Amino acid sequence: MSSSTKQPDVITCKAMVAWEAGKELVMEEVQVSPPQPHEIRVKVVCTSLCRTDITAWETQAIFPRIFGHEASGIVESVGKGVTEFVEGDHVLTVFTGECKTCIHCASGKSNMCQVLGLERRGVMHSDQRTRFSVKGEPVYHYCAVSSFSEYTVVHSGCAVKVSPHAPLEKICLLSCGVAAGLGAAWNVADISKGSTVVIFGLGTVGLAVAQGAKLRGASQIIGVETNPEKYEKAKAFGVTEFLNPKDCKEPIQQVIKRLSGGGTDYSFECIGDTGTVATALQSCCDGWGLTVTLGVPKMKPEIAAHYSAFLSGKTLKGSLFGGWKPKSDLPSLVEKYMNKEIQIDEFITHNLPFEDINKAFSLMREGKCLRCVIHMPK
Amino acid sequence: MSSSTKQPDVITCKAMVAWEAGKELVMEEVQVSPPQPHEIRVKVVCTSLCRTDITAWETQAIFPRIFGHEASGIVESVGKGVTEFVEGDHVLTVFTGECKTCIHCASGKSNMCQVLGLERRGVMHSDQRTRFSVKGEPVYHYCAVSSFSEYTVVHSGCAVKVSPHAPLEKICLLSCGVAAGLGAAWNVADISKGSTVVIFGLGTVGLAVAQGAKLRGASQIIGVETNPEKYEKAKAFGVTEFLNPKDCKEPIQQVIKRLSGGGTDYSFECIGDTGTVATALQSCCDGWGLTVTLGVPKMKPEIAAHYSAFLSGKTLKGSLFGGWKPKSDLPSLVEKYMNKEIQIDEFITHNLPFEDINKAFSLMREGKCLRCVIHMPK
Repeated sequence: MSSSTKQPDVITCKAMVAWEAGKELVMEEVQVSPPQPHEIRVKVVCTSLCRTDITAWETQAIFPRIFGHEASGIVESVGKGVTEFVEGDHVLTVFTGECKTCIHCASGKSNMCQVLGLERRGVMHSDQRTRFSVKGEPVYHYCAVSSFSEYTVVHSGCAVKVSPHAPLEKICLLSCGVAAGLGAAWNVADISKGSTVVIFGLGTVGLAVAQGAKLRGASQIIGVETNPEKYEKAKAFGVTEFLNPKDCKEPIQQVIKRLSGGGTDYSFECIGDTGTVATALQSCCDGWGLTVTLGVPKMKPEIAAHYSAFLSGKTLKGSLFGGWKPKSDLPSLVEKYMNKEIQIDEFITHNLPFEDINKAFSLMREGKCLRCVIHMPK
Repeated sequence: MSSSTKQPDVITCKAMVAWEAGKELVMEEVQVSPPQPHEIRVKVVCTSLCRTDITAWETQAIFPRIFGHEASGIVESVGKGVTEFVEGDHVLTVFTGECKTCIHCASGKSNMCQVLGLERRGVMHSDQRTRFSVKGEPVYHYCAVSSFSEYTVVHSGCAVKVSPHAPLEKICLLSCGVAAGLGAAWNVADISKGSTVVIFGLGTVGLAVAQGAKLRGASQIIGVETNPEKYEKAKAFGVTEFLNPKDCKEPIQQVIKRLSGGGTDYSFECIGDTGTVATALQSCCDGWGLTVTLGVPKMKPEIAAHYSAFLSGKTLKGSLFGGWKPKSDLPSLVEKYMNKEIQIDEFITHNLPFEDINKAFSLMREGKCLRCVIHMPK
C-alpha cells in the first residue's frame, strides 16, 4: 500500500480556540495544513473532554491553542510515507504515540515512546511547527492531537486504526481516561482476584480503575469521594463501599485500615492531588501494599511521603496512559467493548454539540459530569 | 522436644550501656533476666556495628539503653514453650522477627511480621518490659536484640538457628546490613541479567547491593560516593564505574543518564538521605526504572519527588531487611556463604575487642570502616 497520490489542500474549518488561560473557548475559522510526511489529517467525529485539557487550559502558557486529545475520527488524507492508513479509516487519536522502533517501543515493557512521547510545546513532533493557523497566525496544538477542531493533523504514530463497526461516539473514551484507569488496574497494579482496593476520586479515571478491579475479581473496592452524587453510578462500576472524608471524624487512612483489616492491597490516587498520594500510601497495607498515582496535579507537583511507608515494604508506582502501548493494545480494548466485556457507555453523562463545548468545561469544573462527548458537525 | 527443665538464673555480665544520646557507651555490670516464655537467652559471640545503631543512639530518646542488633551467638538457656532451640545452638539475632503464623508471615509475600516486627519502644515484644537492669533500674533494649552485652534475651522468633560450622565472627553481618543489601537487589528489585544499576552510597549496604547486582549479571554498576577511599574495595564487589558528586559539574542524574544511555534500570538509595531519593528516581530510566530506598534517614523523614517521575512509569519501592523472612531465608544465605557463593569477609575492615566498641562508633561516624566486628570476651 502506498499513500494517496492526490496532494491534499489546506482545509478551512471550525475549531474552538483557547486564546487565553482559563478564558472561554471561541469558535474560529482555522486553516488546517495538509499532513506532512508520516502524518495524517483526521476529520474528528467525537471528542470527549478530559480533566487534563482543563488543567492545561487553566495553568499553561502556550496560546492561542486548540485543546482536546480524547477523540475518534476518520482519516481524511495521508502524508507521504504513510502506509498504515488510507482515507476513510476509522481511528482513535492518542496523546502519546508508538513509533514501534525506539528502545522503549522495542522493549516490550514500556509505552514511553522516545520519538512520539508527550508533546508539551504545542507543536508537531516532526518539525516543531503547528498545522493550524487563524488569519495566518499559528495556533498551537495540545498533546499533538488538538481534537477541538473539525479537522486535525496528527502523526501517524499518534493514531490507532480501529474497527469500522465500533461506534466512534463511544470508543473515543478509550483514547485517554477510561483506558488509563483500566490500564492502571490491569497493567500497572496487576490486581489479583480477591484483593482489596481503595480508590481516591471517583471521576472517570477512578471509576475505570474500579471497573478494572471488579473485572479482576477484587473482593472489596472502597471509593473515597467528597461528592456523594457519584456514589450511585460508582456502584455500577463495582465500588462496594463509600467514604466521604468530610464525614470522617478520624484520618481517612485509619478508617480504610479498619475497613480492610490493616490496609488495602492496592490504593489509587485518581484526583490529581499530590497531597493525597501520602494518604493513599498510608491506606494500603505493609509488606505488599501498592499505591498507583494517576493524577496530573494542578498545583504542588511534589509528592511527599514519610520514608517509613517504604521501609515497611510499600511501593509507589505511576504510569502514562495506564501503561498501554496505544497501537499494540487499543484495538483489543475496542474489541472488549464490542464484546461487552468492558463498559464505556456508562461513563457518558452528557452528549453535546461542538458549539456547546464551553458547557462541557463548566460541567467538569463543577463536578457535574463524568464524560461529556462532544459531537462534531457531520 | 521440650525446653530445658532447669530454671535459668539471672546472669550478671558486662554490657556497653548508652546513658545519653550521642554520649560514649559505658561498660557496666548488668543483670540479665532469665528468658521468659518463648524467649531465649543468648551468649553473644560477635556483634557488628550498623549505621542504624548510630542513628538511633544519636537521635532517639529512650535511655539508658543497650544498642546492637547485628549479631551472632550461642543459646545459653531457653524459656518455657521454646521447642526450636536448645542450649548450645548457634544463632543469628534479627531485629525483625518471624512468628510464622500472622497474616504477613503466612502470606508468603511479606516479611513484615505483625507480632515480632520492628520494636521501637526499647522493650520485649511479649510483656513490654526489659530484661536488663543496672543496680535495679531497667535498661532498655534496641530492636529487641541489644547485642552490645555479653548475654542478651531475645524472642525465639527473633533468632535464627544456623549451622554450627559457620564462623560466627563472619556471618553476624548477615543479621542485618549485608543481607539487607543482597535482598534489596534480589528480592525487592529482582535485578535481571545485563541490566544497569546505580548505587548511591558505598557503605556496607550499598556494596552488598553491588554484590547482589554483580551476581545477577548486571552489565553496569555505577557507584556514587563522595569518599574516594571506598572505590578500591567497591571494585571487588562489582562496581564498574565511580562518580563523585563533588567532581561533577552538572547534576549527577544527568551524568548517570548519559553513562547509562537514558537512565539505569535500577537505582538504590543506600545513604539514608531522603533528599537523594529524588535524585535516584531521576537517575533511573522512564518506563520501567525502579528506585529502591534502603536508608533510614537521620534527618528529614519525608521523601519528596516530582510527580512526573511516576507519570513516566517509574517505581519507588522500599523494604525492611531486604524483604528476607529471617527464619525462612537466612539459613540459605549462610549456606551460600559457606559455599563461597557470596562474599562477607571483604566487608569486615576492623576486628575489635568488646571494650573498644566506642572506637567502632568513631570509625563509622568518620566513614573509615565498612563493618567493625566486635568480639565479645570468650
